[in-house]
Amino acid sequence: MSRLGRRSFLALAGTGGVTAAVGAAAVAAGVDRAPDAAPASSVVPFHGDHQAGIVTPAQDRLHLAAFDVVTDSRDQLIALLEQWTDAAATLTAGGSLSPDAGYDSPPTDTGEALGLNAANLTITIGFGAGLFTKDGKDRFGLAKHRPAALIDLPHFPKDALEPARTGGDLVVQACADDPQVAVHAIRNLARIGFGTVSVRWSQLGFGRTSSTSTAQATPRNLFGFKDGTANLKAEENDALAEHVWVGEDGGWMAGGTYLVARRIRMHIENWDRTSLREQEQVVGRDRTEGAPLSGGTEFTEPDLARAGNDGAPLIARTSHVAIAHPSRNDGVRMLRRGYNYTDGSDGLGKLDAGLMFLAFVTDPRTHYVPMQTAMARNDALAEYLRHTGSGLFAVPGGVTPGGYIGQRLFEA
Amino acid sequence: MSRLGRRSFLALAGTGGVTAAVGAAAVAAGVDRAPDAAPASSVVPFHGDHQAGIVTPAQDRLHLAAFDVVTDSRDQLIALLEQWTDAAATLTAGGSLSPDAGYDSPPTDTGEALGLNAANLTITIGFGAGLFTKDGKDRFGLAKHRPAALIDLPHFPKDALEPARTGGDLVVQACADDPQVAVHAIRNLARIGFGTVSVRWSQLGFGRTSSTSTAQATPRNLFGFKDGTANLKAEENDALAEHVWVGEDGGWMAGGTYLVARRIRMHIENWDRTSLREQEQVVGRDRTEGAPLSGGTEFTEPDLARAGNDGAPLIARTSHVAIAHPSRNDGVRMLRRGYNYTDGSDGLGKLDAGLMFLAFVTDPRTHYVPMQTAMARNDALAEYLRHTGSGLFAVPGGVTPGGYIGQRLFEA
Repeated sequence: MSRLGRRSFLALAGTGGVTAAVGAAAVAAGVDRAPDAAPASSVVPFHGDHQAGIVTPAQDRLHLAAFDVVTDSRDQLIALLEQWTDAAATLTAGGSLSPDAGYDSPPTDTGEALGLNAANLTITIGFGAGLFTKDGKDRFGLAKHRPAALIDLPHFPKDALEPARTGGDLVVQACADDPQVAVHAIRNLARIGFGTVSVRWSQLGFGRTSSTSTAQATPRNLFGFKDGTANLKAEENDALAEHVWVGEDGGWMAGGTYLVARRIRMHIENWDRTSLREQEQVVGRDRTEGAPLSGGTEFTEPDLARAGNDGAPLIARTSHVAIAHPSRNDGVRMLRRGYNYTDGSDGLGKLDAGLMFLAFVTDPRTHYVPMQTAMARNDALAEYLRHTGSGLFAVPGGVTPGGYIGQRLFEA
Repeated sequence: MSRLGRRSFLALAGTGGVTAAVGAAAVAAGVDRAPDAAPASSVVPFHGDHQAGIVTPAQDRLHLAAFDVVTDSRDQLIALLEQWTDAAATLTAGGSLSPDAGYDSPPTDTGEALGLNAANLTITIGFGAGLFTKDGKDRFGLAKHRPAALIDLPHFPKDALEPARTGGDLVVQACADDPQVAVHAIRNLARIGFGTVSVRWSQLGFGRTSSTSTAQATPRNLFGFKDGTANLKAEENDALAEHVWVGEDGGWMAGGTYLVARRIRMHIENWDRTSLREQEQVVGRDRTEGAPLSGGTEFTEPDLARAGNDGAPLIARTSHVAIAHPSRNDGVRMLRRGYNYTDGSDGLGKLDAGLMFLAFVTDPRTHYVPMQTAMARNDALAEYLRHTGSGLFAVPGGVTPGGYIGQRLFEA
């Protein structure tokens, strides 16, 4: 699979079998009118110490897919990861998968992103518990390498997980500023994996709900509030090392991280019937500015102790800000990278809308389970939420050219 | 409901109840940091002879919702249409619904579009057959005004319609260049309608598949082909009068049109296993350029008679281009305005992806039913398609300030 830009593909196709049908004029026009290669600014480098799509400034759109591996062949699994790595490098550079298959074969690239630029596409690949053992079987000889941190998430209070939205042996997160580019990436990876993997679930996210860079404005979630103000940012290197990346003692996971994926249905109709005062007290911030109710502006540190005239804390102890605050959670922070979703209606006259929560953490045992337990139990916001899908994935470190994602696991 | 810009809302909220909680500093910051009002170029005028969102250059994203009316009260229905009209005028101008409800009431606007501009939002409202008679009942005294063109669509060959994706007494099409703006519009209209309507189905479209202006490049569908090359364009006034708008003799529907909405699942996995040659023969165009197989470039008129060396037409008689060509359909054309969709997986290991087909026509009896019948029977492309949802809606003409959408129907 060679790495051709989408422009090159057009030129190539124009000189190939297509010519016979459409004539030389069309070929010339095709080349002349081909869109330019993606501008450099829209390309996120694929290779590096860490996979892209984690500290990359959050793109606008998401397509996330979890796959079941349907083969027991270790070689076939490795071949898939090699192919996915190769394809991801091509697609994130704005290229099309090479069309050398010929006119009488199916096109190698499905084509719906022809003419679009890379749109900051990132492709991030992770491994679920099922890759290590599934139904008690060690299909790929990987069981002994399952990291202790790749736990089976406990059942949290109020969880309402649907099996068809939960789990997966592999996950691929495609983020881009153009949804067609993200969908194209997932679709082509699914296609490459035909016979090796099958799509278990997939989720489109139409708008980012978190900033992962200080250069980004804080977006709003479907409760109408700014979300992710206190998020870890790409610029906080020390904090990333502490809270996101697996350290050098992490074996094959060194330089990796864990992705917690939770599909959280938001009961927006109930929320919409709640007074602004109540909404702000539930969140612990004002809606307009996103400032903590203890005063200041959006980026002012919340003062959980500050009391109002009535002696009660201005930020209620059960508010989302208080429950999630590092001071109440042993200082842990997470890198959130979630997306708003809307999936039609729920069959009961309401929109099925919410948050595809995505967070990257160094260890979910310390950085997710305790906080989610507290939130599900005590967070006033939990009344308006229902977790309907869930996945936990070990996301290995990045690759250099010639390597493939997860190679250190298979060579461990 | 007054018409305040989103910036005005921020200022207003800042001087209201929020002040008490966050202090004067936050208010000042809130106003200073409020995003600018929507630039004029991102606002599509709401008022006019026709509703916006029809010949408006197709925006990038769609949220479409069909509603059941759950009241039998004509007054309540009229009040809803008045409120929707008012809200649509505000939202399409980039405003928030006015927050005069006060701090101890639910916010009037749900808020997730605060800080976003109008993003060319259009809101287009239509009436399904159920508004005129439902289960044999004339709930609103409208039965006698049901237009003959608002037929019950026949069952087409290969239809696999799901009731939960079909029908609806009212439809709202929200299109915008920012999906959060489109979702915000549907959600707020649904909310305004609480107690009067309930969401029957809704569909997000992540990418437009048609151009409706000669200034727009032709996008690609999920088969990887350019779609809508021969679409009716906003610039073709005579053709629009002939094929899209209802004429002055149309009674209360004068200046209106009919929206055909079809959710078309695309069997992309089967398509992806088809050779490029076969794909192009099925479509009747080449994939790279979108030129008809009879030669030329994208916008060359297809020559259905031109034969190749083997004597057979270069554009196969069963190709999509041939079947859909006006010359094979009594000269009819339609204004297509569809969107690609991806809705997770189908539970069988495949992506649930396809096209939310939207077309505006002057009369579905002449401009949709015959062509769809031919397509379902003979179009080679139909093998890769399954219609899973359907709706037909009478879209009344536009309004002037002070009026409401559909007013002429209720005053007829």
